[in-house]
Amino acid sequence: MNILFTTYLPEKGFDDLQAHRLVIPKASQSYFTHEELARLLPEADILVSTFDYAVPQDLLLKAQRLRLIANFGSGYNNLPTDYCREHGIMVTNTPEPVIEPTAEHAWALLNALAHRTAELDRRLRMPEYDGIRFGVMQNLGTQLYGKTLGIVGMGNIGQALARRAVAGGMKIIYHNRHRLPDETEHLYNARYVSLEELLSTADVVSLNLPYTPQVHHLINKETLAMMRPSALLLNTARGAHVDETALIEALRTKQIAGAALDVYENEPHISHGLLEMDNVVLSPHIGTGTWEGRISMCRCVSENIQNFINNNIHLLNSVL
Amino acid sequence: MNILFTTYLPEKGFDDLQAHRLVIPKASQSYFTHEELARLLPEADILVSTFDYAVPQDLLLKAQRLRLIANFGSGYNNLPTDYCREHGIMVTNTPEPVIEPTAEHAWALLNALAHRTAELDRRLRMPEYDGIRFGVMQNLGTQLYGKTLGIVGMGNIGQALARRAVAGGMKIIYHNRHRLPDETEHLYNARYVSLEELLSTADVVSLNLPYTPQVHHLINKETLAMMRPSALLLNTARGAHVDETALIEALRTKQIAGAALDVYENEPHISHGLLEMDNVVLSPHIGTGTWEGRISMCRCVSENIQNFINNNIHLLNSVL
Repeated sequence: MNILFTTYLPEKGFDDLQAHRLVIPKASQSYFTHEELARLLPEADILVSTFDYAVPQDLLLKAQRLRLIANFGSGYNNLPTDYCREHGIMVTNTPEPVIEPTAEHAWALLNALAHRTAELDRRLRMPEYDGIRFGVMQNLGTQLYGKTLGIVGMGNIGQALARRAVAGGMKIIYHNRHRLPDETEHLYNARYVSLEELLSTADVVSLNLPYTPQVHHLINKETLAMMRPSALLLNTARGAHVDETALIEALRTKQIAGAALDVYENEPHISHGLLEMDNVVLSPHIGTGTWEGRISMCRCVSENIQNFINNNIHLLNSVL
Repeated sequence: MNILFTTYLPEKGFDDLQAHRLVIPKASQSYFTHEELARLLPEADILVSTFDYAVPQDLLLKAQRLRLIANFGSGYNNLPTDYCREHGIMVTNTPEPVIEPTAEHAWALLNALAHRTAELDRRLRMPEYDGIRFGVMQNLGTQLYGKTLGIVGMGNIGQALARRAVAGGMKIIYHNRHRLPDETEHLYNARYVSLEELLSTADVVSLNLPYTPQVHHLINKETLAMMRPSALLLNTARGAHVDETALIEALRTKQIAGAALDVYENEPHISHGLLEMDNVVLSPHIGTGTWEGRISMCRCVSENIQNFINNNIHLLNSVL
């Protein structure tokens, strides 16, 4: 089998595929261009793609041998799934290994925002600490213990975030397409509410839902106006959930108190307004980006491929 | 009763003492000088001090009416306790309201270090993002889920940190003067180990013990040498627990992988070496520094005073 990678991924995660021919971009961190991929695809039986690399339909026209696209990532909106379905190309993803790293990163960003960790660390490194003084009534943050976390999208990642927040003394409310079973709600003492109630009562609003056109700009001028002046917004899902211009305006006018963001509307571009504000914490879309998380995701891709080769279809993370 | 405050504290926390005369420094954020205090102390029945403000024994010589020092803080090494004991001056502290804020801050700092939150936020705000690129193998952090947290000092704060870490998927080992009861260990699935085993096996070493001369420079050249090259050090207890020069050397030579610090050997001075390193997260001694935490501490001081006035000695957080 010829297995073609769009993107450099550590070979260590693919030890079990040694019997096959792996074509991975040589330089670490590099991606094949579309031209390079077009040349290589006719020889490929399996394509390994990553969530941040779009594979346009045109490229697949000459991929006559292609039987599987094993996507690295939980989302697969980078792939032309309709074309794949029509042409009998199976598509798999890696939903399980992204759960804990993403929830951990969301919780890290929220804690950094509430305790002003990034802001104070940044200012302490400036000349004369940028005026920071030590003192009991100085540099005060916001306590999360006792506050209410509103989770929009209570899937696996939302629940892994809830588990951390409960241990941190937070109360959980959530909104979801479907209400969760009682026993799941009891795990987190979570209360199902309408989106309006969530936005207007939560101290922290966290977005943990997948992107679909129906939820484009879910957070916009109108929904930001429903939030409390003390509320914090946490987005580790997809940039297009939030109207970034409206968010900047809401932060400037103190309509809400702060935001912690891992994703942006026009990545890798981050709006200048966000880069200027101290009540914002920013990370460069690294929700699942720990070494351990990346290796687990590689192993999951590798398993998906082995299951495909061995016809273990029932064990496959197939999304089509 | 005349109640004298060494330091500005928000009046809101002392509503219940309205019947008494409160002498609080006028400007918010300000502290009385020792000279000002010397003038005011002869009229004071009760002194409210804060953990960061030393009250030398000399100052108390003319405090003939003084019956109680109600310290704001869990520690009280800022007070001449021997003198107070000899002269029948009672001393109280605020151990309970500091537990959750301090554990929350420790957890926030550790998550920021592991996920590079402060570093990446700082670099994204520099021209052209300081070279940061978005990409699946870029900017990777360290996952806490699955790792081992070693807690030195498993008191209330250590346990509140353990509760958060367990929810974050960490395994807990601890060292303490006394081993905890079985039922407490079971709460966190925590294993009691020697200090040597803790230092040599933990992925994260967290200091949560009070300061006494016996634990001065507990973390020094020798103990740092026992730690793993991938280990992270977390200090939210007291600066003097750590030989800062030895820590900087260990970070420079990659003997350990990183440090998250809220406290320093010579506060408010922070060693220049620490301010230069990206694998370090720094905060200006704000372990208990949230608005909510400060108000709770004020209310606890106020209750201690009321209990003293009403002779409810058994309800008092008396430390002498």
